[in-house]
Amino acid sequence: MRKRIDLNSDLGESFGQWQMGDDAAMLKIVSSANIACGFHAGSPTGILATLRAAMQNNVVVGAHVAYPDLVGFGRRNMDLSYSELFADVIYQIGALIGLATTAGTDVRYVKPHGALYNTIAQDKRQAMAVIDAMLALDKQLELVVLAGSPLVQWAKDAGLNTVAEAFADRAYHADGRLVSRQQAGAVLHDPQQVAERMVQLVQQGGLMSIEGQFTPIEADSICVHGDSPGAVEMARQLRLALEQQGITVGSFISATIVEEAK
Amino acid sequence: MRKRIDLNSDLGESFGQWQMGDDAAMLKIVSSANIACGFHAGSPTGILATLRAAMQNNVVVGAHVAYPDLVGFGRRNMDLSYSELFADVIYQIGALIGLATTAGTDVRYVKPHGALYNTIAQDKRQAMAVIDAMLALDKQLELVVLAGSPLVQWAKDAGLNTVAEAFADRAYHADGRLVSRQQAGAVLHDPQQVAERMVQLVQQGGLMSIEGQFTPIEADSICVHGDSPGAVEMARQLRLALEQQGITVGSFISATIVEEAK
Amino acid sequence: MRKRIDLNSDLGESFGQWQMGDDAAMLKIVSSANIACGFHAGSPTGILATLRAAMQNNVVVGAHVAYPDLVGFGRRNMDLSYSELFADVIYQIGALIGLATTAGTDVRYVKPHGALYNTIAQDKRQAMAVIDAMLALDKQLELVVLAGSPLVQWAKDAGLNTVAEAFADRAYHADGRLVSRQQAGAVLHDPQQVAERMVQLVQQGGLMSIEGQFTPIEADSICVHGDSPGAVEMARQLRLALEQQGITVGSFISATIVEEAK
Amino acid sequence: MRKRIDLNSDLGESFGQWQMGDDAAMLKIVSSANIACGFHAGSPTGILATLRAAMQNNVVVGAHVAYPDLVGFGRRNMDLSYSELFADVIYQIGALIGLATTAGTDVRYVKPHGALYNTIAQDKRQAMAVIDAMLALDKQLELVVLAGSPLVQWAKDAGLNTVAEAFADRAYHADGRLVSRQQAGAVLHDPQQVAERMVQLVQQGGLMSIEGQFTPIEADSICVHGDSPGAVEMARQLRLALEQQGITVGSFISATIVEEAK
Repeated sequence: MRKRIDLNSDLGESFGQWQMGDDAAMLKIVSSANIACGFHAGSPTGILATLRAAMQNNVVVGAHVAYPDLVGFGRRNMDLSYSELFADVIYQIGALIGLATTAGTDVRYVKPHGALYNTIAQDKRQAMAVIDAMLALDKQLELVVLAGSPLVQWAKDAGLNTVAEAFADRAYHADGRLVSRQQAGAVLHDPQQVAERMVQLVQQGGLMSIEGQFTPIEADSICVHGDSPGAVEMARQLRLALEQQGITVGSFISATIVEEAK
Repeated sequence: MRKRIDLNSDLGESFGQWQMGDDAAMLKIVSSANIACGFHAGSPTGILATLRAAMQNNVVVGAHVAYPDLVGFGRRNMDLSYSELFADVIYQIGALIGLATTAGTDVRYVKPHGALYNTIAQDKRQAMAVIDAMLALDKQLELVVLAGSPLVQWAKDAGLNTVAEAFADRAYHADGRLVSRQQAGAVLHDPQQVAERMVQLVQQGGLMSIEGQFTPIEADSICVHGDSPGAVEMARQLRLALEQQGITVGSFISATIVEEAK
Repeated sequence: MRKRIDLNSDLGESFGQWQMGDDAAMLKIVSSANIACGFHAGSPTGILATLRAAMQNNVVVGAHVAYPDLVGFGRRNMDLSYSELFADVIYQIGALIGLATTAGTDVRYVKPHGALYNTIAQDKRQAMAVIDAMLALDKQLELVVLAGSPLVQWAKDAGLNTVAEAFADRAYHADGRLVSRQQAGAVLHDPQQVAERMVQLVQQGGLMSIEGQFTPIEADSICVHGDSPGAVEMARQLRLALEQQGITVGSFISATIVEEAK
Repeated sequence: MRKRIDLNSDLGESFGQWQMGDDAAMLKIVSSANIACGFHAGSPTGILATLRAAMQNNVVVGAHVAYPDLVGFGRRNMDLSYSELFADVIYQIGALIGLATTAGTDVRYVKPHGALYNTIAQDKRQAMAVIDAMLALDKQLELVVLAGSPLVQWAKDAGLNTVAEAFADRAYHADGRLVSRQQAGAVLHDPQQVAERMVQLVQQGGLMSIEGQFTPIEADSICVHGDSPGAVEMARQLRLALEQQGITVGSFISATIVEEAK
């Protein structure tokens, strides 16, 4: 039985004078910080502040790469060519590595953001651009992927380590797919229910689907949100529930023991 | 007597569909390429193409960091705070390092661009933001500076290696300052005259000022332009004239012998 | 004795997913809305929503033009040429007029934002670019200016109507200048004190300077903020205090009686 | 038999220091200028210069609206929501109207650019956002559309005047569709062939398809390019050939007689 799980969250998403999320609070809860790289969110000064806080909280850092679409927050599909996406991904990871170096930490993984995340789960051309960019820059980088998507195999075939993630507040179908946000019941709002589901996910390797049956989900990480006070509180209760069950919250990067510092 | 000099030029300044300069031609002439980092010019795909070409031509790469002002091409003064400029510089160098890594080369120096170049030659607050950013990221990075400016001492005091540069096509005052572009005779247009002046600069450590007297200028590098066919031709003739005098064109990075590959 | 005053505030400053300020609350309080035009803040969708709300609340609309500096929120000085600033200002006002037209309202005045506001109060070159842009586009546009600044005369000489404004929460020197934010006591935080000062400003044409003497300030409008719950409450109390003294809150655009609709 | 046709071209596509196209040459040839609005290309200073030149050459001006994608030059599909696209289109047209007003001219039509042009030819949601934006701003604006696309009917049903256009240098299928650029023979390079085809188009209402049969194409305007010296020369020869056949080159805006001024 699994005794350890990673919690990841999207951070560093403020931009200039515009604030988003409560990075300070979330860095007390999560073990992995997906940090914006300036294309969908994040300006250098704010990114650097979040990196420093992540280092002080012993939270592992990943690059939250995205389409170049500030006004759309990287949530709109964009039809980039392979070579455009390849170079855009390297540019973003490189910029984050530079800032992370000066903050005394390092970039250990990549989690694509928003529309890019959804697209590469299914679209092989864009997926290979992200995978090849990571391999070209640093073969040790791990890729956070949607559990059960075709992307998992493409990345493994290319020689990249992948980290499957589940979403704490989302309902799943019996075949392992996420329930579309357009459908009623797709998003869970009760912190206690979320905590119980995630404990089950870790201990039993699955959860109850929206159709009412136990569904296996292999996940090394759970994604939690910090974009509202309610979301932060849900994440905090989830961490507490996991620890009460003797489950350690720690990064999927094996050498890193995050929880001890907390 | 000096037997070797560096030639540097601003490259990678195309942006998306917009072309600027003849990078392919200039990479046959110069020993150092100041490559745009996306803030005043340069999109990731184009930057990567220029980096690959620089690697193939054995040209040393530097980061041409700038203010965040695409529409103004980084030529307009901007009053950034120390912390904004510090983070902006690291972000840009980091992004370029990422792309350079995948191109099989490395970033060895930094040359600020346009208004930032002029400002930090005199303004200590902004100068220290650039210097501290470089030291925080990689103490081996060298800083290309205007020969004779206060910046030279600030950088040395901070422990940074500096590379003084002269401008091939600019007139100088007797005290070593550049003649302002507003003044007649500030910019030289005759390739032969430019070549003769630069040969003198290398061999005698100075050149004739606009006031008509020999003026000492200590320079490790000469900046040449590639933004027009005439400029490329002027640079080509300069290199030829230097070589005819037995002067080697090579990077100021001592370990790198650039000219042999040409 | 003056029986009427305008209240203006900066609105429409959200950008994409990033929220800023409480436009809905402020549109119940002010008579003039300075609406961001996309250069320092404001994306088209959000600008349009604020314009529609302004129209519904019978609030007069002005263009809050700025330097092209999203990441710096238009608060950093930029050295634009006359022709760049001239065209940038027209572009922004035009875009806002377009959106205002579809919202059933109109753009009646211009208030420069942030660093541009401060610069043109003193710098004639940039001031004339803004003035000439407004005259070229629509001679009926009025310009909101810092009371007592040289800009007032430049605008009048050029044939532009000006609206002098005072700042509700700022201390003034005996000669009418604002106390610098670097100085203690420059910003007032007590809503009651602010309300009393502004009632005095309207009724007596001046207020107590930081040096302790009555200082005449000629103002047709008072600028209030809405960027925090405390700021909104201060503005609300100010409006209430003015009305309790029989002072009408209404736009400086004479034909528009704003208060009746509230 | 038709005796008059419009020639339109994409202009104002320089951006800051980056030049694109030869606007001065093309404004001697075309009767309609599709002018970039800042989202895919065009900075305010350059747009204004092109507008002034259009006015001096008596060329009718249209808004070349696009997705917000400078680095991709508006050529990449973006999945904007209806409300985002609606507001983006108004913002762009408004900005251009503002600049046109100060240049002494007016914006009479809209031609979507690049990926937006292709998408709305087929995608009703995005098409309606553009159509509704135009109707909300100015019902007199005409929409330039791909001859034969579904967009023609959607625009007519909504009450918008449409202008069907053909492409001078593109091959057509027998059913009136453009031959895909991926296919050999899709783009024509011989100026004389292009001129002959377009004369036939105007005189006979159709041209020879790539399959070798006469294909009716109803077009009120012909799109020509100016992005290379060869393209400019092709456009010049086309105009000459039309005039030699007694066909007047003039705007589709009926009140405007463009050719007389030339």
